[in-house]
Amino acid sequence: MTPADRRAALAALLAARDLDAMLVSDLANVRYLSGFTGSNAALLVYADHRDAVLATDGRYRVQAANQSPDTELLIERACGPALAARAGANGIGRLGFEAHVLTVDAFDALRRDGVVEFIRASGLVEALREVKDEGEIALIGAACDAADAALAELIETGGLRPGQTETQVRNDLEALMLRHGADGPSFETIVAAGPNSAIPHHRPTDAVLAGGDFVKIDFGARVGGYHSDMTRTLVLGAAEDWQREIYQLVAEAQRAGRHALAEGASLCGVDAAARELIAAAGYGEAFSHGLGHGVGLAIHEAPGINAAAAGTLLAGSVVTVEPGVYLPDRGGVRIEDTLVVSGGNARPELLTRFPKELITLN
Amino acid sequence: MTPADRRAALAALLAARDLDAMLVSDLANVRYLSGFTGSNAALLVYADHRDAVLATDGRYRVQAANQSPDTELLIERACGPALAARAGANGIGRLGFEAHVLTVDAFDALRRDGVVEFIRASGLVEALREVKDEGEIALIGAACDAADAALAELIETGGLRPGQTETQVRNDLEALMLRHGADGPSFETIVAAGPNSAIPHHRPTDAVLAGGDFVKIDFGARVGGYHSDMTRTLVLGAAEDWQREIYQLVAEAQRAGRHALAEGASLCGVDAAARELIAAAGYGEAFSHGLGHGVGLAIHEAPGINAAAAGTLLAGSVVTVEPGVYLPDRGGVRIEDTLVVSGGNARPELLTRFPKELITLN
Repeated sequence: MTPADRRAALAALLAARDLDAMLVSDLANVRYLSGFTGSNAALLVYADHRDAVLATDGRYRVQAANQSPDTELLIERACGPALAARAGANGIGRLGFEAHVLTVDAFDALRRDGVVEFIRASGLVEALREVKDEGEIALIGAACDAADAALAELIETGGLRPGQTETQVRNDLEALMLRHGADGPSFETIVAAGPNSAIPHHRPTDAVLAGGDFVKIDFGARVGGYHSDMTRTLVLGAAEDWQREIYQLVAEAQRAGRHALAEGASLCGVDAAARELIAAAGYGEAFSHGLGHGVGLAIHEAPGINAAAAGTLLAGSVVTVEPGVYLPDRGGVRIEDTLVVSGGNARPELLTRFPKELITLN
Repeated sequence: MTPADRRAALAALLAARDLDAMLVSDLANVRYLSGFTGSNAALLVYADHRDAVLATDGRYRVQAANQSPDTELLIERACGPALAARAGANGIGRLGFEAHVLTVDAFDALRRDGVVEFIRASGLVEALREVKDEGEIALIGAACDAADAALAELIETGGLRPGQTETQVRNDLEALMLRHGADGPSFETIVAAGPNSAIPHHRPTDAVLAGGDFVKIDFGARVGGYHSDMTRTLVLGAAEDWQREIYQLVAEAQRAGRHALAEGASLCGVDAAARELIAAAGYGEAFSHGLGHGVGLAIHEAPGINAAAAGTLLAGSVVTVEPGVYLPDRGGVRIEDTLVVSGGNARPELLTRFPKELITLN
């Protein structure tokens, strides 16, 4: 799909809601609908298929013309108010806006002119983004491949061994992702050794990896604006019984979660498929977060897969499955994959292919 | 200053505005005031110096207790509404909120209970953050040092030469920053060769560096949450006359901007000091962005230094000075430093020390 195809899909949603146009403020949404990747932008999309208007500031004049040749370009630092004024001047009555993105102050600035009627249209573009097209899946796949290759090379070259610090491992892994084609890490890489592995979102420190430690690595690559997300937990040396026990439990829960991914499956049901196994083993309290989330132009996007989620999975969604068990002051395990939800009864497509058997490194 | 000192300073600002408490939603502000670095959090700070309440979700229970031992911890995924309810339960009448951070939807969720009165308090914490303490300047300095060392090593080891792609240069430079102590890049590193250097915020591509090219590199390191920001433009081989001309012009404008940095100087005056030189040389249209911005926990923060900026420079601010001249389809030059504004008549302290003479690499 081209950005123009996506704008046409959005125009249909606008018409169905009786909106004359939509002011898109979220930068990932602007990118999705226009191709433009600058850091200051907004996009005006009309329901009647007139040319969309892309606003950005002078720094991006050349880039915007190159990346988004089929939109009209408006150079203005205050992108939102400029497009709202343009909408008013062009006779727009009901203008959708992103109430989940615009700040209270920014919304006030929009309304200053007071010609158009602002209608909440939160999540409209995100709903389109939830189902990925082939090009998007290829980019997420390329990001997953870069992450897979980086972790494999890190281990092959002895980068995961006692004596290394968490920070060194992070540095080496991120450099390897870049070498394997990533534009950068998806998010701040987590390398958590020993007791630190019990902290679900630990930042790397100068803590030294020691024999017998769990090492939990949660990381991803970014390629062409799209993200990958993967967690692997390894043991440096022989695993103790308690380590094997929680590893196998998390691995089983993760498998159950993956197998529950199907078109039409309820989001909370997918979460439950994994969570019930962990709870039945007595570790329910130790799994303190949701099972997964969508991945795409944002590292966290729709759908959320957790106990409170409403709705069902759509074919073409790309999601993570990442149960964990965390035992404070001892250690923790998380195993996470990024997968594509398939249509009908087909199995999901695994994009993060690094092995999930318990790896014990010596 | 400890986070508790900063909360005391905020409490004084709240009392002066007749606010009973403030709900802090911006994550950098939460970090500044509590030390907590998680990705989902809010902080309730009372004007009467009761213990602040830090809200975050279950993933961060251990980390929050470690990083912010002197705040009360509230585990709740919806941090803002939980703290607003707590404020109401604790008899708070007038509650400041961050209208420049909270989205329209998030603000609606806050108001659902309807006990407290919400008062705009945009920019209050940012005003405190504008003046850095010694610890903050040390971290920004360490980030600048990592960037300086990385660029020096990149050049010494022949990493900037014809035949390399922009992407390879970016990869090497980012890996070197990590090796020199950075936690990561400050932002997406810009490496722009030849005509691409005319794009102020170009993303690295597979474009190959060629002899005679300008290579513009805008990058920074992150250390302990604080950022550095530096741009250098080099020539691969002998510089042509037009390249020397715009390089010298930008260097002179950058020097004028740096020399204008002084306690009490007007922000638009600092911008003008550099801009007038460029305009007088006939390149006013080719300098299409502001002169600089504050740097700290955010890569862009107060103060903005541009033609439209009101206000004056404060001693202890850390800012960039980064004029540029961009000639579409030919090439462009930007030279940028990060500096600390000194008190009284003292010169600003230069934190990015990599040389600014035109470097011609062979």
